[in-house]
Amino acid sequence: MAIRKERLVIVGGDAAGMSAASQVRRLRSDVEIIAFERGAFTSYALCGLPYYVAGYVAEWSQLIARTPEAHRRNGIDVRLRTEVIGLDLARREVIALDHEQRREYREPFDQLVLATGARPRELAVPGRDAAGIFTLHGIEEAQALVDWLARERPQRAAVVGGGYIGIEIAEAFRARGLATTLIEAGEQVMPMLDPDMAELVERALREEQVTVLTKAPVEAFATRGGRIRAVITPAGEIAADVVVIGIGVEPNSELARATGLVVGERNAVHVDDRCRTSEPGIWAAGDCADVSHRLLGRSVYFPLGTTANKQGRICGLNLGGRDARFPGIVGTAITRFGDTEIARTGLSEREARVAGLSVITGHARSTTRSGYFPGASWMTVKMLAEESTGRLLGAQIVGGPGAGKRIDTVATALSAGLTLEEFIYLDLAYAPPFSPVWDPVVVAARKLAREA
Amino acid sequence: MAIRKERLVIVGGDAAGMSAASQVRRLRSDVEIIAFERGAFTSYALCGLPYYVAGYVAEWSQLIARTPEAHRRNGIDVRLRTEVIGLDLARREVIALDHEQRREYREPFDQLVLATGARPRELAVPGRDAAGIFTLHGIEEAQALVDWLARERPQRAAVVGGGYIGIEIAEAFRARGLATTLIEAGEQVMPMLDPDMAELVERALREEQVTVLTKAPVEAFATRGGRIRAVITPAGEIAADVVVIGIGVEPNSELARATGLVVGERNAVHVDDRCRTSEPGIWAAGDCADVSHRLLGRSVYFPLGTTANKQGRICGLNLGGRDARFPGIVGTAITRFGDTEIARTGLSEREARVAGLSVITGHARSTTRSGYFPGASWMTVKMLAEESTGRLLGAQIVGGPGAGKRIDTVATALSAGLTLEEFIYLDLAYAPPFSPVWDPVVVAARKLAREA
Repeated sequence: MAIRKERLVIVGGDAAGMSAASQVRRLRSDVEIIAFERGAFTSYALCGLPYYVAGYVAEWSQLIARTPEAHRRNGIDVRLRTEVIGLDLARREVIALDHEQRREYREPFDQLVLATGARPRELAVPGRDAAGIFTLHGIEEAQALVDWLARERPQRAAVVGGGYIGIEIAEAFRARGLATTLIEAGEQVMPMLDPDMAELVERALREEQVTVLTKAPVEAFATRGGRIRAVITPAGEIAADVVVIGIGVEPNSELARATGLVVGERNAVHVDDRCRTSEPGIWAAGDCADVSHRLLGRSVYFPLGTTANKQGRICGLNLGGRDARFPGIVGTAITRFGDTEIARTGLSEREARVAGLSVITGHARSTTRSGYFPGASWMTVKMLAEESTGRLLGAQIVGGPGAGKRIDTVATALSAGLTLEEFIYLDLAYAPPFSPVWDPVVVAARKLAREA
Repeated sequence: MAIRKERLVIVGGDAAGMSAASQVRRLRSDVEIIAFERGAFTSYALCGLPYYVAGYVAEWSQLIARTPEAHRRNGIDVRLRTEVIGLDLARREVIALDHEQRREYREPFDQLVLATGARPRELAVPGRDAAGIFTLHGIEEAQALVDWLARERPQRAAVVGGGYIGIEIAEAFRARGLATTLIEAGEQVMPMLDPDMAELVERALREEQVTVLTKAPVEAFATRGGRIRAVITPAGEIAADVVVIGIGVEPNSELARATGLVVGERNAVHVDDRCRTSEPGIWAAGDCADVSHRLLGRSVYFPLGTTANKQGRICGLNLGGRDARFPGIVGTAITRFGDTEIARTGLSEREARVAGLSVITGHARSTTRSGYFPGASWMTVKMLAEESTGRLLGAQIVGGPGAGKRIDTVATALSAGLTLEEFIYLDLAYAPPFSPVWDPVVVAARKLAREA
């Protein structure tokens, strides 16, 4: 009888899953690796989809970081259009459904990585099934939207949801010349920002002719002949011949929950700092899993591509025989609307108060370059710190080109637990094409230290 | 008899001195503040001069952050064209020479801040006095150069010195359409970078039609009728009708040395972390002073505008009754040549070896944005760490727009004493217009951790 190789099964062929697989392959040649992917693609840039819709990225194939064939050449047995529909923990087997062959089969595993990702949150209102209404969470969905835009030549677009995806899609629609309305149920766009900073984003949207409606929950979609005609909100009817819904995502954790794995915030699969679930030999990573938040000291659901890659790597290192621990996130995120860059890290004022922290805040309006240097843009920084200790708690940035990535300085400082005073004297890079002599993030910290 | 107010005298009206003065004024209204400035300007952006020469900044007045009048309105007695030529410690008086009135007088002080700045290092070779040879360390000098360019319409420019100023002036000359030769005595341009990274800068210079000569010490300037005609080097004669010498600066510390104050590296006035000199009541800040280096654990001469502002602030806070300490620099600097951004922080490989550290290095070639995103540029990162501990030691970056300011992430990590492993999992901002999913600085750290 042949001795079976140790077998690793990956469920989900995108960022987290394939990072894990590649990392294991790098460290161990003696493990059999099987990756199940229910779609047709592996390792693609989900975050790039709005820019494909915008037309900035000409071909969807540019978004593929690594094809199934490349993974196979790397010794990973990628099985496309094959969905894992069950998990038999007693027998250590997955139950797979090959959608092409319409065949169900079992595959044993020694170790298993759940990397099933997330799906768009749905809007259960009348008319949702009308043609011309899209979500954007996969290459096929993006292709369908792009096809619709090319074929139907819509003139009026509505975007439901004012978060990251919402404003990225709004940029895409404006780039294509569509009259665009952004519809947000909450009080403000970009709920991950405090209202004062979100106001700057709303202003940028309006300056680029996006109509912004807040406090406008969608009640229904009005249709004509099975096609979208308008979005119905308490503020009235917004005519639209194409709609994208981007109101957040939720974890694909059904498999885990059905098997009795512990789940956390928003039903995400709970993992420890090694990406182990509550069940020995079962790991999870990426948008289906939770992650520890360094400032909150607890696990949260904060699905982002960058975290998915890191958790995948952690999984892979541990499965490859190393002992790797993920120190957690600090809540960093970035996007843009046209030339307006938007970034945040740490806790917002709201989040800090909810966490019971005494928070103080400081704002700075400064420039991305020295004020006299051509191309200098305005930027606003909001900095937050704990009143009693001076420890930094977070920052938010809204500003022109070059503003956003400055959030990394604060994110690094948060990870290191720096105080305001320590932050103020950081040796940050200055030359006129790059910054005023005091970097805007430091100006905000100085304002906050009440010594400015 | 009237009781005299406490009196603070500032020697030098630029970044460090006027930062100190302004900070004191903010904290204390009961102090008389006199600032002596031998030139005609206060608080101007020395670092902006090359861009004024380039024509990017149309008027020199744009470089003035705060005029003498503005300082006077703020209650600071600014005395222009008045040089402090002596220091009488016994009587606690400065000896001032008013160049306009040709009058010498004494002024008593209780506290004194030396902020006398630096001057360009000289090149003592034959022909140095020829017309058309400039240094660039003040508005008057920049005006003289700009006048020469306008009046004499030179066609061939030579820049002596391949450091920050040298390459900034090379950009300025190219922007004005001059045939430009960069002449460096040492083995490479940008001696603050390791040779492998400096090579990338040389390539960028050559791609923009700058002729780069290294190992070419200037032996003499050839003149015709008292005007520059050529630069003589061992590599031959380089024809030039305008020359800028930018071979570094040295501290204006004569006053301090004549008074017996302790000086440090390169004769810079030695200060402690509160910016106190060896003499009670005498403080120093900015380009005339040294500064502690957090990684080397000793004081160095590393004159930069950003440090001058910070030391000025430290001085001012302490003089204003606070207890402020400057934690020191980590050796961060940035510049650019055209679209090529150049940044460094921490120790170079050379510096680390000189300091007796066992250094390991890693390189990454990556992109400023996601590779598929329009406007993505190549960038190279070199990361350095201590072999035994994994502690980060420094980084160098050369790359396209958006590359350089990433050095701040490393600078912050250096200040916090992060290790490679800690650095790799930082929660840095990712979205396709801003970064690949792993930021290039992290890719370099991963390479260095030999796990990439």
